[in-house]
Amino acid sequence: MQETHISLAHGNGGRYMRELIDELFARHLANEFLDTTVDAARIVLDSGYDPFVTTDGFTVKPLEFPGGNIGSLAVHGTINDLSVAGAVPRYLTLNAFIEEGLEVAQLERIVSSIGVAAREANVLVVAGDTKVVARGEGGGLYLATTGVGLRDTRVDLGMHRIQAGDAILVSGAIGDHGTAVLLAREQFGLRGEVKSDSTSVFTIAQALLKAGGLHFMRDPTRGGLASVANEIVAVSGHGVRLHEPSVPIQAPVRSVCEMLGYDPYYLACEGRLLAVVEAGRAASALSAMRATAGGEASAIIGRIEGAQRHVVLETELGGERILEELEDDPLPRIC
Amino acid sequence: MQETHISLAHGNGGRYMRELIDELFARHLANEFLDTTVDAARIVLDSGYDPFVTTDGFTVKPLEFPGGNIGSLAVHGTINDLSVAGAVPRYLTLNAFIEEGLEVAQLERIVSSIGVAAREANVLVVAGDTKVVARGEGGGLYLATTGVGLRDTRVDLGMHRIQAGDAILVSGAIGDHGTAVLLAREQFGLRGEVKSDSTSVFTIAQALLKAGGLHFMRDPTRGGLASVANEIVAVSGHGVRLHEPSVPIQAPVRSVCEMLGYDPYYLACEGRLLAVVEAGRAASALSAMRATAGGEASAIIGRIEGAQRHVVLETELGGERILEELEDDPLPRIC
Repeated sequence: MQETHISLAHGNGGRYMRELIDELFARHLANEFLDTTVDAARIVLDSGYDPFVTTDGFTVKPLEFPGGNIGSLAVHGTINDLSVAGAVPRYLTLNAFIEEGLEVAQLERIVSSIGVAAREANVLVVAGDTKVVARGEGGGLYLATTGVGLRDTRVDLGMHRIQAGDAILVSGAIGDHGTAVLLAREQFGLRGEVKSDSTSVFTIAQALLKAGGLHFMRDPTRGGLASVANEIVAVSGHGVRLHEPSVPIQAPVRSVCEMLGYDPYYLACEGRLLAVVEAGRAASALSAMRATAGGEASAIIGRIEGAQRHVVLETELGGERILEELEDDPLPRIC
Repeated sequence: MQETHISLAHGNGGRYMRELIDELFARHLANEFLDTTVDAARIVLDSGYDPFVTTDGFTVKPLEFPGGNIGSLAVHGTINDLSVAGAVPRYLTLNAFIEEGLEVAQLERIVSSIGVAAREANVLVVAGDTKVVARGEGGGLYLATTGVGLRDTRVDLGMHRIQAGDAILVSGAIGDHGTAVLLAREQFGLRGEVKSDSTSVFTIAQALLKAGGLHFMRDPTRGGLASVANEIVAVSGHGVRLHEPSVPIQAPVRSVCEMLGYDPYYLACEGRLLAVVEAGRAASALSAMRATAGGEASAIIGRIEGAQRHVVLETELGGERILEELEDDPLPRIC
């Protein structure tokens, strides 16, 4: 395409739209299943597995941040939802809502990142759609992705399997993504020392499945670790007790949060996995996680309790703090 | 939920978001596969069929218009893409990008319409995500839907099957949706006499599959009939000749287009189906279409030609007009 910026004509169903789709999107996302001339894409799903679907919207601001951009984030977010369900991600569909005036070069960097992240995760983008909205009716670019994956029919994971006494593990430091996005926003005037943790957790999830004793996995994105813990309490009916000194938090994340008044327990991660594992298998699960690339900083951070219905954080000083369910918005458009 | 308008807190991963999802979305879309506490939904796909996926974004303005709203439009658009591929729609995923300040009552009307349209089409919404963007960064509500369907493995449809001499049929009047949306925009100061044609074309598509001789189907949405015809020319390498007096166009659509300078051949339909059928089977295909509810006004409107590489419209006065590929945007945010 010749144009340097997206115009409304790129959304009208005519030549400009065809060029945008063929010369930008399809070029970076090409695979044997992607055909821009069909209404629906045929996919192949091996028999003997349970198919899983998941979907996510992405509105992060700024569109590019240290450690990733909205494109890599969308791929990671979607394959992570399949991964923590115990499935192997196979196919993605992609929707792009593009604001008039977006620089084509920036769009191309983002779509290129989608292609790279998809290839790294061994998933194929098989269908897509683009819409252009007028200046002032969008945030540059919003993405929506749907993922299809396959899970071994013998796997049973979920909130229903969580029991009192289970150990809670996390695959790395929390709050990196939220902090990186925060720092990337110009109005704070701070330089970004922290990179987003945006990445695939698929390898870690598979290692946990093999290690055994696994009851539940989740990626703590919007609302962070505290929100996942509160959801466990709300759905499973068990309490959650976290041991603050064991929770990995990077020093710069800690100091940025102190400076700006944020609580790292509520900040999004986009490449971390929280696992609930049978107590007797916690040590071997931890070893399995630490043996994966990206899981080296994994830690046992707490346990499931039967006696109470809160998320309790045992502080370094021996006190206790309740991590309440989030009421106000700490950081809009973070994912 | 207690609130009358959407706030940023409805997007933060905490209590407000949970209430929005559980009390508004899940209430209207409830089915045995939808579980708001999981990351990915297990679906069941009967063996012996080819799975198909499709995805679409929706940005129509205004959000509600005579004959439908962005919610029913999203369901119809997605199941129609599966239907014209010859598949039976089974599952949907739904993404909602909601602008801060949207009236909750309006959102509820729209989500309710999604539920009604899905039930009518016998599809289940199995996964969803909501994001809230700040005032001035959205158009009220954008939706993205992905559909999963199943097709008989023996079906072979597509541009590759189109041959010179094939008949072109359409299932009803063209341009109704585009015109209805146009009239619903206040700035034109015209009353809406035209209703959107937004509906499912599944029954018509299945009737055509049974009738035999079917080579290709498409729903002429963005860019209208002229854009589908131009895509046939570009991809199949054959010409398209349309017979203007045979193309069904409602009188009010025609007069609105004349008044405002739009060409109905480029205006979106959201419930029409264009079919390319073997010449000898055109009459029986037409009968099959006319026998369906919603297909009563079906017509044979033209034929595929080998000799030229354009879309030619034979006018009522015996002249010829080339329907060029769309260059400029006739009507943004129409779907």
